[in-house]
Amino acid sequence: MDVQQYMQQLGQAARNASRVMARAETMQKNRALIAVAKEIELAKPELIAANQADVDAARANGLDPAMVDRLILSEKAIATMIEGLHQIVTLADPIGEITDMSYRPSGIQVGKMRVPLGVIGIIYEARPNVTIDAAALCLKSGNATILRGGSEAIRANQVLANCIRKGLEAAGLPGDAVQVVETTDRAAVGMLITMPEYVDVIVPRGGKGLIERISREARVPVIKHLDGICHVYIDDEADIAKALPIADNAKTHRYGTCNTMETLLVHRSVADQVLPKLAELYNSKSVELRGCELTLSVLTTIKAATEEDWGTEYLAPILSVKVVSGLDEAIDHINQYGSHHTDSIVTENYTKARRFLREVDSASVMVNASTRFADGFEYGLGAEIGISTDKIHARGPVGLDGLTSQKYVVLGDGHIRQ
Amino acid sequence: MDVQQYMQQLGQAARNASRVMARAETMQKNRALIAVAKEIELAKPELIAANQADVDAARANGLDPAMVDRLILSEKAIATMIEGLHQIVTLADPIGEITDMSYRPSGIQVGKMRVPLGVIGIIYEARPNVTIDAAALCLKSGNATILRGGSEAIRANQVLANCIRKGLEAAGLPGDAVQVVETTDRAAVGMLITMPEYVDVIVPRGGKGLIERISREARVPVIKHLDGICHVYIDDEADIAKALPIADNAKTHRYGTCNTMETLLVHRSVADQVLPKLAELYNSKSVELRGCELTLSVLTTIKAATEEDWGTEYLAPILSVKVVSGLDEAIDHINQYGSHHTDSIVTENYTKARRFLREVDSASVMVNASTRFADGFEYGLGAEIGISTDKIHARGPVGLDGLTSQKYVVLGDGHIRQ
Repeated sequence: MDVQQYMQQLGQAARNASRVMARAETMQKNRALIAVAKEIELAKPELIAANQADVDAARANGLDPAMVDRLILSEKAIATMIEGLHQIVTLADPIGEITDMSYRPSGIQVGKMRVPLGVIGIIYEARPNVTIDAAALCLKSGNATILRGGSEAIRANQVLANCIRKGLEAAGLPGDAVQVVETTDRAAVGMLITMPEYVDVIVPRGGKGLIERISREARVPVIKHLDGICHVYIDDEADIAKALPIADNAKTHRYGTCNTMETLLVHRSVADQVLPKLAELYNSKSVELRGCELTLSVLTTIKAATEEDWGTEYLAPILSVKVVSGLDEAIDHINQYGSHHTDSIVTENYTKARRFLREVDSASVMVNASTRFADGFEYGLGAEIGISTDKIHARGPVGLDGLTSQKYVVLGDGHIRQ
Repeated sequence: MDVQQYMQQLGQAARNASRVMARAETMQKNRALIAVAKEIELAKPELIAANQADVDAARANGLDPAMVDRLILSEKAIATMIEGLHQIVTLADPIGEITDMSYRPSGIQVGKMRVPLGVIGIIYEARPNVTIDAAALCLKSGNATILRGGSEAIRANQVLANCIRKGLEAAGLPGDAVQVVETTDRAAVGMLITMPEYVDVIVPRGGKGLIERISREARVPVIKHLDGICHVYIDDEADIAKALPIADNAKTHRYGTCNTMETLLVHRSVADQVLPKLAELYNSKSVELRGCELTLSVLTTIKAATEEDWGTEYLAPILSVKVVSGLDEAIDHINQYGSHHTDSIVTENYTKARRFLREVDSASVMVNASTRFADGFEYGLGAEIGISTDKIHARGPVGLDGLTSQKYVVLGDGHIRQ
């Protein structure tokens, strides 16, 4: 069987399974999640051996050590996986929820019912924990899923696929509701993103290059996260006692996350006061600073920032710093160079806070809070399939609701249109 | 200037204007709508002359008479256009609305703010009234718009474009917030749908062929309506006094609309009772019936339906009729052959009504009501840019909210992430 046939077969099976999943009861979906957790527990020795074989092969092939790190499934990682499944059991089932039901002048009652999207294709790197995480979220939201993980994790993913199938079947749900692509042929990805008849939406998780390529070539809607060039703007009316911890936390809490600050904007009236203190703080944590001309006049020993810096997501202990003339310049800079992800203003001024919230065109806009809060768990979504930098369908952290749609429900009593 | 340069220039201008529109106050947008109405009033003689020239040219070129009909701007059509603008003034402004604001355990407050999508590209046929309708909805929802109407309406559209620009500028808003593509070069459409840097979403309005082609070629999300193959299912527990008017209204109220019933499903236990009465009713209105084998055993003189009939949107006084064994077969038929638009069950049975609502995978699902109710005005949206048969972003009738997105708003008091 060639890849095309294989993928179409997966697609058809997913479509069929999605119909059953859409009407599955909450209890049944929860039973499946618990059964999957149990199967993983039972398959632990097999899973560890498969992962070891993946890791050995990856090392032999000279895979980047950072990627090998993310490939490794420790005992602790497996325990976290299992705990994650139990957490998703506790989340409210979004499916079937009816809202906004009201009577119209014609006499009909109109409302909206939350429904699954159908079939979700997930494309991700060689991180076997994503397999369970993504499968569980799609399952709970009543969707069928086709998972295509990085080929370096294929052995562990096959073991996990088997656990998921057994768990689904134990709960009386179709085993095909979650399918893991079992070929490492790269053509499989090309097929997956161009089968609108079988796949309703693609969620890519990985590097920017991969996601850009998928967005360009997909014939199916893509819920995507490109990059996180996040800003903190310290206003002249900022409370410095709030500004310093926020600027510290936003940059240094974790360097490799998408909601980490990459550019700090400081009002020129407070630059002299704020920048030396922050420079000391960042210096103590070995954060490299790159400044605009005005910044360099205060912090004389740091490197100059280039035009390229303003549009760079470092994902590293590097921070670009720009002194601005006020709120307008800050907002313009963010809207021009940012990635519409997460931006925060530190100010005590009501009107400026209000303007920042309204005029900054980002998925998350904040006042007096660290950008690191932009996260599905912190926002109370209970779980997160990713963070969308798009505006269509889902924006910002995407939880179970982002994997659903709403249909209109109309109740009448023999009503006809006049 | 070539088409590519021209379209990029429109795109850049729209993007710039969209930033101003996003923060425009409700009052200012309403003033612009009223000013556009006034400009149209003033330009009426010019508009009628331009339209007459369009119509003459279309007739000379042998345009289909039905299309010429839709091209004509009567005095009444112009009055309706002006009234439409005033109606949109009365609609609530969705932009800036903050919902779901709540405190999280960390102490931050998280909610959502409704924001415009940005730049909306609208591609439609030679119907000048759509120019004003679409422009007004995009304007009220704080978006910038690029409008590409059918080339046969180019002269009237240019007059209208001028009225819109004057109205915007009179209200202090950027004239580029609504731009009408002033070239009839077809390459303009190809450009418009492949400029993700300038255009955030495309709304095509027109025939299925046009929309399929745009969806296939677009590199920008498309809010689309393909076809409306709508069903009414008359259950064995239907109240016949409700079933007959609903089946009549759903088919014969208007033949050419997307929410018109195209296939009638009847439970076999009531086929003998219902079908002859309906056949008489449809016969009196010259509706052609095409039946399945079981239907033909009751209505012996009608034409047989072919496999193709079940998947056909007639948009004409033709109806396919199928006798089914029960709810399961009805739901399976609808999900397989329908277009996921609008489907209705007629029944007094609580459990079957509930199952139909949950299991039929359509944008609108109804109980004891005519499919003709699937409409933005009937649903209380106040206006309608179209009806989406997609699941992503907007499903069913799309009003102002469908032209918006939501961003997260986070309010803190110096909060940092632990």
